[in-house]
Amino acid sequence: MGRWKPDARGRLEKAALELYNHQGFDATTVAEIAARAGLTERTFYRHFADKREVLFPGDNPLPDTLAKAAATAPGALAPLEVVNHALIEAAPVFEERADLVRQRQAVIAANPELQERELAKLAALASTLARALRERGLETTTAALAAEIGLAAFKIACERWVTDRDGHTLAQYIQETLDTARHLTARDDVRCTGQEEVA
Amino acid sequence: MGRWKPDARGRLEKAALELYNHQGFDATTVAEIAARAGLTERTFYRHFADKREVLFPGDNPLPDTLAKAAATAPGALAPLEVVNHALIEAAPVFEERADLVRQRQAVIAANPELQERELAKLAALASTLARALRERGLETTTAALAAEIGLAAFKIACERWVTDRDGHTLAQYIQETLDTARHLTARDDVRCTGQEEVA
Repeated sequence: MGRWKPDARGRLEKAALELYNHQGFDATTVAEIAARAGLTERTFYRHFADKREVLFPGDNPLPDTLAKAAATAPGALAPLEVVNHALIEAAPVFEERADLVRQRQAVIAANPELQERELAKLAALASTLARALRERGLETTTAALAAEIGLAAFKIACERWVTDRDGHTLAQYIQETLDTARHLTARDDVRCTGQEEVA
Repeated sequence: MGRWKPDARGRLEKAALELYNHQGFDATTVAEIAARAGLTERTFYRHFADKREVLFPGDNPLPDTLAKAAATAPGALAPLEVVNHALIEAAPVFEERADLVRQRQAVIAANPELQERELAKLAALASTLARALRERGLETTTAALAAEIGLAAFKIACERWVTDRDGHTLAQYIQETLDTARHLTARDDVRCTGQEEVA
């Protein structure tokens, strides 16, 4: 049974990410992860169904965090503002574990199968967010598009954050990337500005 | 060797999509596809590496079409207009094969593994489009985001088109969905409209 050790889950995750990065995800065994963490395989399987679940945990709080933040955002916000609000609310989930998130991104970037799984998880998050936006009364296409743009911005913001040398927070990158999205979709604003000048 | 039959590839594709839809992708064998098309397995493998390649052909013209259209779009266009232009140029690739595209979408929607592969293909298309936008002089984040917004709009437009009962073209749905993207920051538009009313 082994002695009780504090934060077994955290130590298994740390050991797994180090091994995935050093020797590759495919080449790493659960036995090696457990040994590196100073724990048994049995303890590993008490926390994770398999070695992939270390990267894609079943109890990921992100979908709930996004859905709740979208549901409780102020009523007057434009669709993309609601998405912005939800993503900023979710940012601390990542910022609190910055080193682990960076290591995880590197593992996924090195493995096409894991990339496909990550894209599927992002698509599922977009669906969750789209549902929350529809429940705010947004039309189906508007909700789907706002959610997809939000997750695209989130993905790009994460990539910038994990390679960041300037010490910006993830929340700052999300804000910046969504500001870029606002400028990209601002054709109507430009027309309005022209009319103001005429007036 | 068998007698030469016209459009073997097209007949194999049609037979495969029918079987994938009727009995499921996983349950279908290459032998069954060949038999339904009145051809040999050997002929199947002359056209496709495996049964998945029927759905994800290696010689897909879409990446090149998008990249070329983005590269040759008029210089004065805003980033999202370039994306719009590229997607509209690519639309006939789908419209010419509407029935096959509808069947393909249904097969993929029924199979999580195929969905992951489809998401990976869309992500690769977004990368191709982002590269073409960078080559037009766009900054990295702007190019990545414009491409992601474009592919999200394209995905949503395709879903609307394949379930369409109104007879709209895919190009019309792409245009409409990108128009929706322009209204996602609608708070600013509302402000503009207010100013117009005052004037």
